[in-house]
Amino acid sequence: MQNFIFHAYTKMLFGKDQIEQLPEVMDAYGKTVLLVYGGGSIKKNGIYDKVYSLLKNWNIIELSGVEPNPRITTVREGVRLCKEHNVDVILAVGGGSTIDCSKVIAAGAYYDKDPWDLVLDGSLIKEVLPIVTILTLAATGSEMNKNAVISNLETNEKFGTSSRLMIPQASILDPTYLYTLPAIQTAAGTADIMSHIFEAYFSREKDAFIQDRFSEGILKACIKYCKIALQEPDNYEARANLMWASSMALNGLTGSGKEHSWTCHPIEHELSAFYDITHGVGLAIVTPRWMRYILNQDTVDQFVTYGHNVWDLPMEEDKFAMAHKAIDKTEEFFKEIGIPMTLSEVGIDDSKIEIMAEKAVKFGGLENAYVSLKKEDVINILKNCLS
Amino acid sequence: MQNFIFHAYTKMLFGKDQIEQLPEVMDAYGKTVLLVYGGGSIKKNGIYDKVYSLLKNWNIIELSGVEPNPRITTVREGVRLCKEHNVDVILAVGGGSTIDCSKVIAAGAYYDKDPWDLVLDGSLIKEVLPIVTILTLAATGSEMNKNAVISNLETNEKFGTSSRLMIPQASILDPTYLYTLPAIQTAAGTADIMSHIFEAYFSREKDAFIQDRFSEGILKACIKYCKIALQEPDNYEARANLMWASSMALNGLTGSGKEHSWTCHPIEHELSAFYDITHGVGLAIVTPRWMRYILNQDTVDQFVTYGHNVWDLPMEEDKFAMAHKAIDKTEEFFKEIGIPMTLSEVGIDDSKIEIMAEKAVKFGGLENAYVSLKKEDVINILKNCLS
Repeated sequence: MQNFIFHAYTKMLFGKDQIEQLPEVMDAYGKTVLLVYGGGSIKKNGIYDKVYSLLKNWNIIELSGVEPNPRITTVREGVRLCKEHNVDVILAVGGGSTIDCSKVIAAGAYYDKDPWDLVLDGSLIKEVLPIVTILTLAATGSEMNKNAVISNLETNEKFGTSSRLMIPQASILDPTYLYTLPAIQTAAGTADIMSHIFEAYFSREKDAFIQDRFSEGILKACIKYCKIALQEPDNYEARANLMWASSMALNGLTGSGKEHSWTCHPIEHELSAFYDITHGVGLAIVTPRWMRYILNQDTVDQFVTYGHNVWDLPMEEDKFAMAHKAIDKTEEFFKEIGIPMTLSEVGIDDSKIEIMAEKAVKFGGLENAYVSLKKEDVINILKNCLS
Repeated sequence: MQNFIFHAYTKMLFGKDQIEQLPEVMDAYGKTVLLVYGGGSIKKNGIYDKVYSLLKNWNIIELSGVEPNPRITTVREGVRLCKEHNVDVILAVGGGSTIDCSKVIAAGAYYDKDPWDLVLDGSLIKEVLPIVTILTLAATGSEMNKNAVISNLETNEKFGTSSRLMIPQASILDPTYLYTLPAIQTAAGTADIMSHIFEAYFSREKDAFIQDRFSEGILKACIKYCKIALQEPDNYEARANLMWASSMALNGLTGSGKEHSWTCHPIEHELSAFYDITHGVGLAIVTPRWMRYILNQDTVDQFVTYGHNVWDLPMEEDKFAMAHKAIDKTEEFFKEIGIPMTLSEVGIDDSKIEIMAEKAVKFGGLENAYVSLKKEDVINILKNCLS
């Protein structure tokens, strides 16, 4: 196991009606708040009005319309508002996009130049405004971690940045907020959670036993409860487990001690940078093709463990047959939860595969991934995703 | 799942030589430090000298000789030192006893009256000195949680207290520090970790799926790696997994959303309050007898799950037979790792069973446990522990 630092310091307020704690939580940080949210679903489900009634003694500045793949232009506008109004604290109400956007705004508020610099180099982040989140989508884990992903549509770039200073101070997780999600968001969010696990679970580090058992537990929760949530959108148990899975999958618990470059995320970032597709959908499409591509004598044992511990496959002598079954199960699961599983279905053809592969390798550090990948490898994986 | 707050904010610096980060960690809190430690093993293994060489620019006050079951008299002495020397930060070097003692000292430093009040009522804790720990034993999880257990030998009382303010700010976990532990401490520490899991795992709350899978993962780590550590004391992988298990078992991850009174801990607290035995040994003795005593139609399913998921027992039709096998496995495991498994072996007869049972029920809240227990029940359980 590699040395690591684990520091997931967010105060997680989990459960029905935990939003009632919002004034007490916000009180620690000041009275001028930047409220950040997306397309307005929080107005339909009542959270927006609830926030205003709870924070009636606060001065609330608004930044709405954060995009599903949040854009640097929106970050810039948020930074402008923070500086103009001397904002004390950012309240992000939404999913990972809104929270990611809020993180870079919070860092940009203390940065003199263009916040895109902070996306390109997280080490430039020296101070941030405190961030509180109210989560409305189980997916990215941004509510309890240091990461943010921002898109620049002018340059077709989508990059992740990271700083422990951007970890939210507190996050409110009420599983009932997930009841009204469109089915595809429940499914794509689950695929995102599972991909966060896969990126660390498939690793050359073999002795992080606890991290791997935690990973399998989260994967099993996703597999069990996503289907239930799709059939019964207001099943509390299902929503609660998916919401907690989101936070647990990417707060360091599953990846500590086994750091390496990720694979599917950098590849997917290129898909959504060029085509603005839903992140979780792109991940679900890429994942089984990546798994098949990297299956070899060195990696087969981890796929066997995965098949046995996550999919309850009986152990068998032919390890490769078992590994293939586990990968097939993964692909079938994504299909069953309603994710379009080819690039063609989401309107992507082969015309930009080469440039996307080049950028994924160049910016994604894929040579340091679990199985090192070159441009040709990514081209092959993406071609396998077409149909 | 019940509503919960999860807030495990300790910065965990994990791995070989992480002690080198100590000056940077301590720098945030001030230059006068109370160094708290136990019987002097840290002088033999070099940690003591290392701390002095790293903190050569600090003013170090010492409190040594913290007992295995830390006493309120030692806490009082620590509080006196903090007040006399205007201590800024407490550095606890040791296992759970040293850290627990440091926590109540840290709270007592801001309290005008006798710190025993804070043991009896954690809500009196309003402010604490920052605590940094260097862990030398994998057991209590105190390095990442809000709990402290203190004994009062004058009154034969041993109570736990709790406050989120007492959570350590940072903990240094170097698995190599466990290499020189006596075998019985490795074993008893493992039993303590496992008991922390059992106390929450056996619960009336059935829908905390992720918490239960995490619990099973930690239990499997204990079972696998304790034996390896006993055979090869300097096996890094084994020590690392046991050390991480300690922190993960009682930081909220396994118990969140399924709160209820514990059982084996309050019973064991009476054993060590009256007889000063090793906490983990007492827990190991009580645990299988408690399990057999509470096995019934309502609880059998969780024992079946436990047997299947932790001990890899094949599912069988006779649920009670399977549950008994799982409990037998638990008892055999504790025997195999060298724990004396009867009260007689640790010098305890039946003379004080009644008073211990009375106190366990009175102070331990056993009527609100997973299976509600009365004094007569505890007497029966303890009698079953005699031989």
